[in-house]
Amino acid sequence: MLRPADIARTLTLRDLQWMSVFQPHRRDPDLRPVALGFLALILVGAGALLLPAAHAAGHRLTVIDALFVSTSAVCVTGLTPINIAETLSGFGQAVVLTLIQFGGLGIVTASLMLVMLGRRRLSLAHEGAVAATIGRLQRARPAELFRFSCLAVVLAETAGAAGLFWRLRAVNPGADQVQLLWQAVFHAVSAFCNAGFSIFPEGLVRWRGDAMLLSIIDVLVILGGIGLLSLVNLRYFRFWRHDPRERGQLTLQTRLAATVSALLLVGGTLATLLFEWHATLAGEPLGRRISWAFFHATSLRTAGFNVVDVTLMHPATLVLGLGLMFVGGSPGSMAGGIKTVTFAVLFATARAALQRKENVEIFGRRINARTSAIALMIGLVAATIVGAGVIALMFTEFRAPASAAPDHWLGVIFEAVSAFGTVGLSAGVTPLLTMAGKLVVIALMFIGRVAPMLLAVYLARPVKRWHTRYAEEQVALG
Amino acid sequence: MLRPADIARTLTLRDLQWMSVFQPHRRDPDLRPVALGFLALILVGAGALLLPAAHAAGHRLTVIDALFVSTSAVCVTGLTPINIAETLSGFGQAVVLTLIQFGGLGIVTASLMLVMLGRRRLSLAHEGAVAATIGRLQRARPAELFRFSCLAVVLAETAGAAGLFWRLRAVNPGADQVQLLWQAVFHAVSAFCNAGFSIFPEGLVRWRGDAMLLSIIDVLVILGGIGLLSLVNLRYFRFWRHDPRERGQLTLQTRLAATVSALLLVGGTLATLLFEWHATLAGEPLGRRISWAFFHATSLRTAGFNVVDVTLMHPATLVLGLGLMFVGGSPGSMAGGIKTVTFAVLFATARAALQRKENVEIFGRRINARTSAIALMIGLVAATIVGAGVIALMFTEFRAPASAAPDHWLGVIFEAVSAFGTVGLSAGVTPLLTMAGKLVVIALMFIGRVAPMLLAVYLARPVKRWHTRYAEEQVALG
Ligand SMILES: [K+]
Ligand SMILES: [K+]
Repeated sequence: MLRPADIARTLTLRDLQWMSVFQPHRRDPDLRPVALGFLALILVGAGALLLPAAHAAGHRLTVIDALFVSTSAVCVTGLTPINIAETLSGFGQAVVLTLIQFGGLGIVTASLMLVMLGRRRLSLAHEGAVAATIGRLQRARPAELFRFSCLAVVLAETAGAAGLFWRLRAVNPGADQVQLLWQAVFHAVSAFCNAGFSIFPEGLVRWRGDAMLLSIIDVLVILGGIGLLSLVNLRYFRFWRHDPRERGQLTLQTRLAATVSALLLVGGTLATLLFEWHATLAGEPLGRRISWAFFHATSLRTAGFNVVDVTLMHPATLVLGLGLMFVGGSPGSMAGGIKTVTFAVLFATARAALQRKENVEIFGRRINARTSAIALMIGLVAATIVGAGVIALMFTEFRAPASAAPDHWLGVIFEAVSAFGTVGLSAGVTPLLTMAGKLVVIALMFIGRVAPMLLAVYLARPVKRWHTRYAEEQVALG
Repeated sequence: MLRPADIARTLTLRDLQWMSVFQPHRRDPDLRPVALGFLALILVGAGALLLPAAHAAGHRLTVIDALFVSTSAVCVTGLTPINIAETLSGFGQAVVLTLIQFGGLGIVTASLMLVMLGRRRLSLAHEGAVAATIGRLQRARPAELFRFSCLAVVLAETAGAAGLFWRLRAVNPGADQVQLLWQAVFHAVSAFCNAGFSIFPEGLVRWRGDAMLLSIIDVLVILGGIGLLSLVNLRYFRFWRHDPRERGQLTLQTRLAATVSALLLVGGTLATLLFEWHATLAGEPLGRRISWAFFHATSLRTAGFNVVDVTLMHPATLVLGLGLMFVGGSPGSMAGGIKTVTFAVLFATARAALQRKENVEIFGRRINARTSAIALMIGLVAATIVGAGVIALMFTEFRAPASAAPDHWLGVIFEAVSAFGTVGLSAGVTPLLTMAGKLVVIALMFIGRVAPMLLAVYLARPVKRWHTRYAEEQVALG
């Protein structure tokens, strides 16, 4: 069990300076730099994309499209009203890649706040049993954590790029090596950051015949969606030690994130297979159907790549996709949505109510009522924002080109959820959007990226103590 | 403050027999009779509607349509694949009216369980402050409550029928009095039970020129959506007494139900005015626009009457309508949906999380964590059922007539939410449904009516005590 003395001993002046970056006001983190940082990056990116050097010969970019692509890249969403393979020059595509990378690092930095706040709360709470399980995390220095996070990003992306390059060389004998390397690097970063951008005119449809290439992308996407808190936990989980006190344990965070992710991946794959069997998967061999269905399920949370034509998908797949995109990936990861752990807490809370238990329990741990309330709040706020976005798009696209598509209103709803969940899949609506519609989608992308992150950090701060305590009164529901 | 002795004194043998109807097993209510009762009524109704005498000359009813109409009537939903004014004879329409009335009384009977359970829990908890506020309710005999409920239904419907008859005579001089009386009675019952059935081929569009007729319908619909718990509270709220101990108080239940209902009505009216100003309300005088918008907002929760063509409504109105239909009316009322009080509890819980307060508080009262969990559970279960229903309909209606309508998939989603919320508004999809689609909608209507009611009663029972108490562990969300 940790005592204040232990903590004090492990804190050095350098650590305190580091912590002050995240917690300037009375040790509460200041959230404005995160939002402002993303905003500044978006504006700089839009400016860079407007440079003539960024455009391919014979193409030009409007201001709104530059803002759209920049927002989409920084928020690692992947929606785009233009085909970046055709409209942007090599320099323009490099700008997009840089924005994706900085956006991803911004997410990592913001996620460190969550780790810090988690540490502090534990040390204040003196909860022996739990503190012991991640005692090593407690003693880790912030600077060390930051280095570890950046190293994880670089390692994953390098390994991914190497894998893709190796495979691309094998399937494209005689192709330009530099070109292949560029393709490998771009798609590795885009996949790990869950951005979903591609520099091929037809997207990853080009690679859909090669299950190995798709698998590498799958692995990168899943790694990027794991979340920093679980990565840090795994860092201090010395599974090879026999003594449990030396070994560390998997935190509830890690177990919830992994379980929900696995369930959503398997469930999403099976549902896609079932729903698309006679639609976009029709006539393909079984192995390819499974590869594509798994790729689609992985992509829905929340990479946004596609190997089949989303506009041709069965409406049932799109509706199910709305749910998967809304849940998204794990907290503190490149993924968007309300997050897997939020979903798990909501599920556990509802299950406790159904079993008429007093405490919310999952995996042999108790979740306090406040965590349930926060999860509910995130869910309600997200639903409200998406709902408002859908209604706004109904207005901007009423009798506009986007509403002339065959499944138009379902496509518009899909677009809003995809933007909020920073997924980037589209049923073909994006290029048809009106100017006002593009602004709505830009707002949804930005809010969807920043709001859940900020809410989580803001709410992880300690509870205010209130002196008033009202009488309890029962109400009947249903 | 109530003591056990007080309660014992007020309980007579007759009361205990009454209570045993609702609570056969160890004082826990048995829920099966409610579900089975509704099911039996539906089957009997479908049988009656299949009798040749129930059909208008030259018309016939298929088995699936009879089952559909019977379910819709018993569950007071109002969706119908046929035009009951043209397809059914006077006898057939009387069968529908009878089914609506019995369905409504079934809801009242089931709601009494909630009142009973509320009483018992309070008396066990000895919560002085709250018990005093509804002390009179505590002392009321179950038989008296049942008589009061039935009296309230009869009074409201009689007064409504009288008002409609008086107005119909004024605007239809020289018309057949018996015919007008039948119209008044049918629509009064249909409105108070929130059923939404009409015996006019064009529905209440016939009355849309008369704001007075629409207002009477509005009042009946709102009264039917108040909920038995609040009605009983108002019964014992002797507002004319000066001494607060003699007067009784408005319970939190009543205040939440009234506040949310008022907000949804006003918000719904304003949004409908705004969204439909240039659509279905275009070119009408201001007074009529307001009358129609208020009527639509009232009808969305959850009567299901319409005075403008729903198929011509702006998609934004339909999307907003999805939300209002999902929330529905107040617990223990004729209305469907997850209920106003459930919505209020979810909102209060989310607000407490955002304010970083430990307790969920609203209107000077504390709501316990278990109530929040139950509200969350009802919301999640409802969303899951609606989602599954939508996906099922996407399959049954794929490339079927219903998918040929202009806003088809939005219409199909609207249909599913309308069925689950027992609203009965339709964007024109109902008559186009396939056989399988009709079965899905029938299931949604039944589940939407019975499930929230049963869940609420089941969950209002006391919490199980568990001996294990796991260690608490924090997780990060967002
Ligand atoms: K993405
Ligand atoms: K109805």
